[in-house]
Amino acid sequence: MTKVHNYSAGPCILPQEVLKKASEAVVNFNDLNLSLLEISHRSKDFVEVMENARSLVKELLGVPEGYQVLFLQGGASLGFLIAAYNFLPTGGKAAYINTGTWSDNAIKEAQRIGEVAEIASSKDKNYSYIPSGFGIPNDAKFLHYTSNNTIFGTQFKKTPISRIPVICDMSSDIFSKKINVADFDLIYAGAQKNMGPAGTTVYIVKESALGKTGNNIPAMLDLQSHIKKDSMFNTPPVYPIYVSMLNLQWLKKNGGVDWIEKVNNQKAALLYSEIDRNPLFKGITAKSDRSNMNATFILTDESLTEEFNKDWAAANINGIKGHRSVGGYRASMYNALPLESVQVLVDVMKEFEKKNG
Amino acid sequence: MTKVHNYSAGPCILPQEVLKKASEAVVNFNDLNLSLLEISHRSKDFVEVMENARSLVKELLGVPEGYQVLFLQGGASLGFLIAAYNFLPTGGKAAYINTGTWSDNAIKEAQRIGEVAEIASSKDKNYSYIPSGFGIPNDAKFLHYTSNNTIFGTQFKKTPISRIPVICDMSSDIFSKKINVADFDLIYAGAQKNMGPAGTTVYIVKESALGKTGNNIPAMLDLQSHIKKDSMFNTPPVYPIYVSMLNLQWLKKNGGVDWIEKVNNQKAALLYSEIDRNPLFKGITAKSDRSNMNATFILTDESLTEEFNKDWAAANINGIKGHRSVGGYRASMYNALPLESVQVLVDVMKEFEKKNG
Repeated sequence: MTKVHNYSAGPCILPQEVLKKASEAVVNFNDLNLSLLEISHRSKDFVEVMENARSLVKELLGVPEGYQVLFLQGGASLGFLIAAYNFLPTGGKAAYINTGTWSDNAIKEAQRIGEVAEIASSKDKNYSYIPSGFGIPNDAKFLHYTSNNTIFGTQFKKTPISRIPVICDMSSDIFSKKINVADFDLIYAGAQKNMGPAGTTVYIVKESALGKTGNNIPAMLDLQSHIKKDSMFNTPPVYPIYVSMLNLQWLKKNGGVDWIEKVNNQKAALLYSEIDRNPLFKGITAKSDRSNMNATFILTDESLTEEFNKDWAAANINGIKGHRSVGGYRASMYNALPLESVQVLVDVMKEFEKKNG
Repeated sequence: MTKVHNYSAGPCILPQEVLKKASEAVVNFNDLNLSLLEISHRSKDFVEVMENARSLVKELLGVPEGYQVLFLQGGASLGFLIAAYNFLPTGGKAAYINTGTWSDNAIKEAQRIGEVAEIASSKDKNYSYIPSGFGIPNDAKFLHYTSNNTIFGTQFKKTPISRIPVICDMSSDIFSKKINVADFDLIYAGAQKNMGPAGTTVYIVKESALGKTGNNIPAMLDLQSHIKKDSMFNTPPVYPIYVSMLNLQWLKKNGGVDWIEKVNNQKAALLYSEIDRNPLFKGITAKSDRSNMNATFILTDESLTEEFNKDWAAANINGIKGHRSVGGYRASMYNALPLESVQVLVDVMKEFEKKNG
């Protein structure tokens, strides 16, 4: 097969060896002569998958005692509601940092339960930076933020210092770098970036922080009902969880989060330095807040758009068109994208400069 | 590979040709040299999958104009809440028929929104029959029932006649027989029986019936928000939807719901007649309410349990142990289970009689 350099923003590139095993399990899983798709989620074989997946999350992120890991459905979009239901008493106050579309949607869901103090926002500059220097109200029940903005290409480089509990939507950078789980009461993340395929969402929650809102939480939105049933309150999304497990095994085998953080830093440095060096390109976010996952940039001369589009397509590069709300280009460099693929893009940019410089 | 006769109650058997194609798409989808798992859900190739899947549901079930088909996440368990949120005004009244665990859970979720009149129940006989002769209150906003009970093995043979709108959880018998969609304001069903693998849930909803509750519905639970975005309000569960599409293509190619209904009737007749004929076995539900999907039965002499378990296991039969709340055996005969597999089980039962009769 021709090698495609897959820069998709999510669902995104997964390692070839993971895809190979994932493909095999669809016809014959664990030598059962049955597909993974047609066995009971209560079977020994699948319960083992679920437990392995939960353990790998704990091991790779160094999840401390007292935290639970769940694989649920609904994406981070349902997570916005789940976070608010489980941590915000009806009518209570929560502090949200608004760094774009996803933060904005999270705020809307929290407003159904209580009051949201939007304590910082980068909306004034189309979310092209990460706000700083904000105060966090002590009477808020928690601080919520989105660690990485896939659309605009910004990323928190540090966890905000907070005296109140912190909740983070890490959908697009979980497992891409070291984090200190103890800094958070709740982390949630849709799988379809660095964890696995679309269709499951991981929750990492401090168990002692739950059950304190007095809310009458619907069963499927109540993290405690899922914890009680070991993440099998109802039939789980079997296949997305299995592929996530394979992908986390791949990450562990290669050196874990320490290793991938270095690789991700190298990839980002390579691409951003070319964006900054090459006069035909320009980054569109504040340099200090640039995302290691999603690099956004534009052509300095828009009339060259068609030509550049032809050039990268000819190099088997896929998925670098920018999001419709930003325009330009977005190169997503998730864990499974190799450094060589970034080099291919950088080479295309250099060649493009030679022709048009 | 040794042929396994897969009677799993769900996730359940899928056709071999579906599994083969589903496996291939994980390594190379549509000759893109990319996995289906690593492309954007907004790509032309996946949008086509989503639209095909929605169209096949419409075609196979004869869905009339004015209805929308959605593929969402969360299983029927989230459907319990979605049904209530979208059709029951806060404090309003709804009528529920209780035929077991799933109805019971549906009732609990509706009670968070309004008042539930449990108008009929078979709890008095451990849900071994389908109630009849009940009245439906005219002031209720809708009637809710579960068409097939997988745990106890009962099934509604007709849609209840109702002057108020009807909502049905068809998780375990959708696509197994003809239905008249116009009888319902909402049908919802987890995929993992006759539609596809676990991880998606189909909603078939009369659009004009929505938006009338005055409820402030969270975005992910609001069927109108999903309709507005063509079932892509957020990243959909790509793979479960793709495999469902393949499975619905298989059903269409073989003759659709008319065809499978005949096959399912044959399979059920074959097994139930053996259960009734063979003195070593006994059905545990009312004969008139027996499910064509899940046949439950017990040994008349419990001391033979170990021997019978060995016999069916030796015949490569899988997944016929009864649910823990019922005991005995449960043979689930979903669409993809061939008549030959039922014959194998019946032969084991006949041989067992010869040895022990």
